Amino acid sequence: MSAFFTRIHTSNWFQNAIVGVILLAAIAIGLDTYPSIRSEYGGVLSFLDKTILGIFVVEIVIKILAEGKKPWRYFKDGWNIFDFLIVAVCFLPFNAQYVAVLRLARILRVLRLITVLPKLQLLVGALLRSLPSMVYVGLLLSILFYIYGVTGTMLFSQNDPIHFGTLQDSLLSLFRVVTLEDWTDLMYINMYGSAEYGYDGNQDLIIQSQAQPLLSITYFVSFVLFGTMVMLNLFIGVIMNGMQEAQLEAEERNEQKNIKELGHATLEDDINNLEHELTNVQTHLASLKRKLKHSQEDS
Amino acid sequence: MSAFFTRIHTSNWFQNAIVGVILLAAIAIGLDTYPSIRSEYGGVLSFLDKTILGIFVVEIVIKILAEGKKPWRYFKDGWNIFDFLIVAVCFLPFNAQYVAVLRLARILRVLRLITVLPKLQLLVGALLRSLPSMVYVGLLLSILFYIYGVTGTMLFSQNDPIHFGTLQDSLLSLFRVVTLEDWTDLMYINMYGSAEYGYDGNQDLIIQSQAQPLLSITYFVSFVLFGTMVMLNLFIGVIMNGMQEAQLEAEERNEQKNIKELGHATLEDDINNLEHELTNVQTHLASLKRKLKHSQEDS
Amino acid sequence: MSAFFTRIHTSNWFQNAIVGVILLAAIAIGLDTYPSIRSEYGGVLSFLDKTILGIFVVEIVIKILAEGKKPWRYFKDGWNIFDFLIVAVCFLPFNAQYVAVLRLARILRVLRLITVLPKLQLLVGALLRSLPSMVYVGLLLSILFYIYGVTGTMLFSQNDPIHFGTLQDSLLSLFRVVTLEDWTDLMYINMYGSAEYGYDGNQDLIIQSQAQPLLSITYFVSFVLFGTMVMLNLFIGVIMNGMQEAQLEAEERNEQKNIKELGHATLEDDINNLEHELTNVQTHLASLKRKLKHSQEDS
Amino acid sequence: MSAFFTRIHTSNWFQNAIVGVILLAAIAIGLDTYPSIRSEYGGVLSFLDKTILGIFVVEIVIKILAEGKKPWRYFKDGWNIFDFLIVAVCFLPFNAQYVAVLRLARILRVLRLITVLPKLQLLVGALLRSLPSMVYVGLLLSILFYIYGVTGTMLFSQNDPIHFGTLQDSLLSLFRVVTLEDWTDLMYINMYGSAEYGYDGNQDLIIQSQAQPLLSITYFVSFVLFGTMVMLNLFIGVIMNGMQEAQLEAEERNEQKNIKELGHATLEDDINNLEHELTNVQTHLASLKRKLKHSQEDS
Repeated sequence: MSAFFTRIHTSNWFQNAIVGVILLAAIAIGLDTYPSIRSEYGGVLSFLDKTILGIFVVEIVIKILAEGKKPWRYFKDGWNIFDFLIVAVCFLPFNAQYVAVLRLARILRVLRLITVLPKLQLLVGALLRSLPSMVYVGLLLSILFYIYGVTGTMLFSQNDPIHFGTLQDSLLSLFRVVTLEDWTDLMYINMYGSAEYGYDGNQDLIIQSQAQPLLSITYFVSFVLFGTMVMLNLFIGVIMNGMQEAQLEAEERNEQKNIKELGHATLEDDINNLEHELTNVQTHLASLKRKLKHSQEDS
Repeated sequence: MSAFFTRIHTSNWFQNAIVGVILLAAIAIGLDTYPSIRSEYGGVLSFLDKTILGIFVVEIVIKILAEGKKPWRYFKDGWNIFDFLIVAVCFLPFNAQYVAVLRLARILRVLRLITVLPKLQLLVGALLRSLPSMVYVGLLLSILFYIYGVTGTMLFSQNDPIHFGTLQDSLLSLFRVVTLEDWTDLMYINMYGSAEYGYDGNQDLIIQSQAQPLLSITYFVSFVLFGTMVMLNLFIGVIMNGMQEAQLEAEERNEQKNIKELGHATLEDDINNLEHELTNVQTHLASLKRKLKHSQEDS
Repeated sequence: MSAFFTRIHTSNWFQNAIVGVILLAAIAIGLDTYPSIRSEYGGVLSFLDKTILGIFVVEIVIKILAEGKKPWRYFKDGWNIFDFLIVAVCFLPFNAQYVAVLRLARILRVLRLITVLPKLQLLVGALLRSLPSMVYVGLLLSILFYIYGVTGTMLFSQNDPIHFGTLQDSLLSLFRVVTLEDWTDLMYINMYGSAEYGYDGNQDLIIQSQAQPLLSITYFVSFVLFGTMVMLNLFIGVIMNGMQEAQLEAEERNEQKNIKELGHATLEDDINNLEHELTNVQTHLASLKRKLKHSQEDS
Repeated sequence: MSAFFTRIHTSNWFQNAIVGVILLAAIAIGLDTYPSIRSEYGGVLSFLDKTILGIFVVEIVIKILAEGKKPWRYFKDGWNIFDFLIVAVCFLPFNAQYVAVLRLARILRVLRLITVLPKLQLLVGALLRSLPSMVYVGLLLSILFYIYGVTGTMLFSQNDPIHFGTLQDSLLSLFRVVTLEDWTDLMYINMYGSAEYGYDGNQDLIIQSQAQPLLSITYFVSFVLFGTMVMLNLFIGVIMNGMQEAQLEAEERNEQKNIKELGHATLEDDINNLEHELTNVQTHLASLKRKLKHSQEDS
């Protein structure tokens, strides 16, 4: 019985059908954002939505049944839990107020493409696995942000309340600076004072304009330098992780190929091969020596 | 007969002449964009254009004739088809309305430089060959764009119809965000509400101004983080592809050089063989080590 | 006696407690930036501040006592000096005028996280150690900045006194250009003349508006090209340094693990020795090859 | 006689003195940009300028004399020619009109730091040597720029004469787009028409406002994609070049170390070493085999 369901949900046509349904769901959700289409074909889209939800439920049921007498094993796979939650959220009893949330939740169905396409699953898995290696660079970045955030709030909250009014404002502004997006505007506001620069039309928000050229230049230039340097290290970490990943993968592929080619090989086989090849090496060395002697005698 | 035409189109002077004609075509097209030059020397440029077109036709004819009794073989090379289409498009019967399209089509002649210079052809070939390896990262990026595009349209279409009015507007704005170009402007519009920020002079376009600080910050900061992370992975993929390509190329070149230089077994051949066998030895050693580790983990 | 104190400050509970105190200090400093919290809970925060300072003093005393009869050895470790200074600065006799400086100094306590968490210490150490390798690229960048700074001041100080009025203004503007932040604005100001572009509302600052299209384009485009090229080389240096660092680290870890796991000669030791010797063989082979090439070139 | 001059110009104190003089020249040129300093200490600076020029002339003379009876050999080194030109340009008979050019020429003296510091000379040499490897990617980039430049001029010259009026304007704008600096502004101008966007205060420059949303989006988005992709390949080229350079350097260093350690080693020495090490390898293999047999008998 469970073998029957396993055969279904691992069959090619079933998997392709699910991919098709997900793509259909994505298109339906996209069309739903156009008010004109929603007002005209709202009924069709709603019916489609329910059908797709039904198909997803059926898929989950098949996969659970495929586990036979141990249905809880379905929930041992993180990707299955992910699929389940995406479907389950649509059955929560939302009142009219939260309809918008429900509509947003439906977008997550597009993410199911990742769980359904094995290559995408691998890629995202690799991305997720590279996260732990970034913990310490991330911590260093957090310390940098926190120190500059507190300092910025202390120095500039009076002069530039829009960008440095509170600690959270400062942290957002620092994120902007680290992406190098109009960072000089922030610097100029605190260099020349907000009464002189950048607060046109918002003069009423200024608490006390104050020009701090040296402080502002030091603060922003040093943050750009430190920030990009640490970010660069974060990127290097990601790049090197990706390279190691790729190398390991290649080695594994190689090994599997070897296993396939050789059938089975034991330690002793390996050592015997080594010995054989070393003998070859020595033969070549001897021949090399002979030739060298001849060539020297010739010259 | 076909040998004669082959000799022509593979001769150095013919290839150099074609490069010259293409450069001339490029200059003519460039000069044609200056209204003053066009009004004064329009006749000369038009004559030049026709002459160049004629030379390209002659080139194609020579190359087809060079194939002898199997002229269709000319079309087996993708670059030849490319050349043919660039010339053929100029003979389509455009009416006056489409003259602009015809003028634009002539610019593509500059692309013939790629087909004519072997090194450029190699480079573009390598670029094209690296595309398939990016399919899955590209798909992941598309999913990210689509989910954020639909979400953005739902959340911000009332407040910021210029950038998030429809799904296609949102996707364009997200492309802008991923290039980090003035992304904070989009965030501030939806943080403070379009009545407060960014719609000076376009107040009439606003459907309903709405300040959503938390949603806007979460949406844009997370998209910048995810977007740059996936883009980074795309870049890493391209870089690693390029490196492998370069390595393979270097190895091949090396091998060919050896074969060309030596022809018969010499000292260097011996050493190369030694090297090759030592690599084998090391591969075996590595596999030996792995197995030993596994056997120790098992016991 | 000193052994007792050593046991304390190297114990897990003590180190965790210090991490907790530092995090508490960070939160207290963050809360202190909110005027409303400071006015209401000022007394609590001030008490917390003194307690934390006291704990840090106790920690330093314990670490010094742990050195036994040679307390000066505490100051042989750069990180200890760093910790000591962060605490010492709070005991300097500031008068009311410098209270702001004292408050800023307290933020540096967050940096103690780096000295307390060994992994962060390693990371920052690696960053610091990579600096010397950048000295010459940094020097090249300085020469580039200085030459363009002096040139920019000479060419544009009359037309654009805000960005190129003095040498220091020019250097700041060039730093802005190298981050590619609104660099075209600076170019357009000096291309079209400040009376035409970019000085709306600051017309009174202009000394003499002057349109220098060719000079401005050449100046800025060439600086962007040279600047990004040298920066790229700086980044490559950092990346390659990081990679070597990581490789060395991995090798060391590997070696230490082997020593720890095995202690005495085992199968794995043998294989490692084999590997090491094969590397020697290959090095000799490579040198052999090079010499052979030279000898052939000579003859 | 020539040996005497060689001894002088290769001595440490002479080279350090020259570095000092160049730094002094740099400072003098920097101070010269401040009008207040120039008006007060103009005489001192002018005297300093002449002294420095004199020292440079003396240096050149010493170096030429050091070549003995073949003074023309001085000009065989590119860096010497560079030094000579920097000094020679100051003796050209400029009339008052070109005094500014003369002042600019003096800045180039700072570049002499590169010729004087061997490490910088190496670095710049490496940068220059990496240029040829970029010729073809550069050519591809030029083709891309030219095609998009001509197309942009044809499509947008009427609507956006400031950025796409002539071919050279278009090329400058495309360079701006490839640095991702405010590229969306250019896109929006041609999407919405210049009467609607971006020409506030410059309405009189518009020839004919024209909204071309599809064309503009396709043009700019595709150029950003192609441009960054080719630029990325340029960067990869530079990075890989740098890595190879570093690897070669390390190998060379290694070889020199070997030569130093071994005194002189011939081909035969190398082969003998190989043989010796291979014997070691075999001894280890034999021991490995014995141990493996024992361990299998034990289990």
